[in-house]
Amino acid sequence: MKVRDVENGYLIRLEKGEPVMRTLTTYCEKNSVMTAVFHAMGAVENSEIGYYDLAKKQYFFRTIPETREVASMHGNVAMIDGNPIVHAHVVLSASDESLACIGGHVKEVTVAVTLEIFLRPLPAAVSRLMDESIGLKLLDL
Amino acid sequence: MKVRDVENGYLIRLEKGEPVMRTLTTYCEKNSVMTAVFHAMGAVENSEIGYYDLAKKQYFFRTIPETREVASMHGNVAMIDGNPIVHAHVVLSASDESLACIGGHVKEVTVAVTLEIFLRPLPAAVSRLMDESIGLKLLDL
Amino acid sequence: MKVRDVENGYLIRLEKGEPVMRTLTTYCEKNSVMTAVFHAMGAVENSEIGYYDLAKKQYFFRTIPETREVASMHGNVAMIDGNPIVHAHVVLSASDESLACIGGHVKEVTVAVTLEIFLRPLPAAVSRLMDESIGLKLLDL
Repeated sequence: MKVRDVENGYLIRLEKGEPVMRTLTTYCEKNSVMTAVFHAMGAVENSEIGYYDLAKKQYFFRTIPETREVASMHGNVAMIDGNPIVHAHVVLSASDESLACIGGHVKEVTVAVTLEIFLRPLPAAVSRLMDESIGLKLLDL
Repeated sequence: MKVRDVENGYLIRLEKGEPVMRTLTTYCEKNSVMTAVFHAMGAVENSEIGYYDLAKKQYFFRTIPETREVASMHGNVAMIDGNPIVHAHVVLSASDESLACIGGHVKEVTVAVTLEIFLRPLPAAVSRLMDESIGLKLLDL
Repeated sequence: MKVRDVENGYLIRLEKGEPVMRTLTTYCEKNSVMTAVFHAMGAVENSEIGYYDLAKKQYFFRTIPETREVASMHGNVAMIDGNPIVHAHVVLSASDESLACIGGHVKEVTVAVTLEIFLRPLPAAVSRLMDESIGLKLLDL
């Protein structure tokens, strides 16, 4: 992981093999980034992504072992019990002639080539609180 | 709708059942947000999205009733006749094993679970003006 | 190409026929934008997009002649040999009933209707340097 402070934000490069969600979370913990937004692009592998099934109140995840381009990745950082939690959604395009896209909520993705992130801390302390009717910890605004 | 002013922007949470385009437009009207950019993620249903057919000079829209993850949603706000107009494009991933993505121009989408938005007002007053050769109101820059 | 300086960034409208990567690169060269991030939406044609094949250390590109909506486009600007280089990933949705998305790394796309860009220069001077093990010029942070 390489980071450049660019005033009002950080340019970050994650390296092959780094788990994106875990690495970003640890970075935010160590640097007290408690509320932020970010986007990223690059290529990942061993992706676990999925969707939230509101009727069952649980996520469905699928694992995609092969390398895919990160056509789009967006997320935010907010606190649960005072610790920064990263929430991200992604669009992954196939590394074959189809270039077909799949996407959804990110459990984890691992950098396959490189990942370029722009992380923008926000001057606020936003938490997530459980909403029992939804079954998720929603932004407490 | 919940909003937190985070300096240089607003973190917004829309709630289940809220129409995204209408709710954002009303918010911008009431708060005099005339020019802005935003992105959003979450899950929506009853989506009306489509594409612009330049030959026919009209949009084609398709309705997708079922819940889909908002893998990516981007937009901007600019004025038509002095009122804020929201323009957005979206990528929706299927809430099934395929996780397949569809996307395009947004007519309306309704929050199915939650929607997390970062709206960034810009210190400018940008309008849209009709371009007869294109058939759309383009940014007047 | 039309540009409005909106403080901390530029709203840009590219016009039908303009090559996006080339036009943005030239703009950055002329205006000394050496490090930046951006996103864009609109519709393009004659798209050359693809993916990086790490085993072969080369990009595979596919040409898509027909018009597609830019459901999402993200990128950054950094320097190679002191000149600004634009790096972008895109999600393109089909201009037909399927609205199906393809995506990946952008070689070039040409504006088919309009393209609305928000470009945000960063107060930094970031270069790209060749990483021989990856075969690409990565952000030097």
